[in-house]
Amino acid sequence: MMSSSSASPFASLPEPPYFVVTFASRRTEGDNGYGEMADAMVELASRQPGFLGVESARGPDGFGITNSYWATEESIRAGKQVVDHLAAQRRGRLDWYTQYEVRIGMINRAYGFTRKRTQ
Amino acid sequence: MMSSSSASPFASLPEPPYFVVTFASRRTEGDNGYGEMADAMVELASRQPGFLGVESARGPDGFGITNSYWATEESIRAGKQVVDHLAAQRRGRLDWYTQYEVRIGMINRAYGFTRKRTQ
Repeated sequence: MMSSSSASPFASLPEPPYFVVTFASRRTEGDNGYGEMADAMVELASRQPGFLGVESARGPDGFGITNSYWATEESIRAGKQVVDHLAAQRRGRLDWYTQYEVRIGMINRAYGFTRKRTQ
Repeated sequence: MMSSSSASPFASLPEPPYFVVTFASRRTEGDNGYGEMADAMVELASRQPGFLGVESARGPDGFGITNSYWATEESIRAGKQVVDHLAAQRRGRLDWYTQYEVRIGMINRAYGFTRKRTQ
C-alpha cells in the first residue's frame, strides 16, 4: 500500500536503466500489524541510498504487487538488509503472507501516458 | 485483473532470465467496457509465443499494476502489437486510464515463499 503522504501512486523515475524489485504476495486474513508495518517498510526503504520510487496495489482478494525501483543492484542488496532487519523486529511477520514471489531485474525501456486535465 | 480461469493469482515462471513488462495504471471512474476488455487482452496475450505468465492487482483507489513475463524481447514486441490491435478495435479505449506507465526489462533473479498448508 502506498504511504498516505504520497500525492500520486506513480513513482517519478529517471530515464532507464535502473533496477526493479517486484514483490507479488497474497495476504493472510486479518491485519496482524501488517498495515502499520507496510507503511514503515516503505518509509524506511525510501530513505535508503539508491532508492528511486515504489508503486503498490492490492486487490480485494488479498493479492498485491509492489514494484520498487533502485539505482543499482548494490542498493537493492543494502535496502533489503535494512528492511529485513526491521521486519524481523516485529511479531507476526510470518503471519502476513500465504505466498510471495520476488523477482529482481534491470529496466531498460520506459514510456507512459498522462491524460490532460482540460475538458 | 486476473482471468477467472486462473486458480492462483501467481504466475508459474521458469528460472530466470526472462523479461518483464510492468504496467502501472490509474483507472478512470466507471467501467466503460474495461472489465471485459482487460480479460480479453490477458486471454489474447497468454496465447502469444513467448508469453510466460501475468500477475495483476488493482486497489480500491483505482491504481493497479500488471506484470507480464515473456521469454524474449521479441515476444514482447510481437505481443504488444496484437494486444494494441485488439484494444484499437474497442470503443472507449482512451477513457480507461487517467495515467499509465510502462517499464520493460530483464529479470535475472527470483525467489519466493509458500506457506505450508498443514496446521
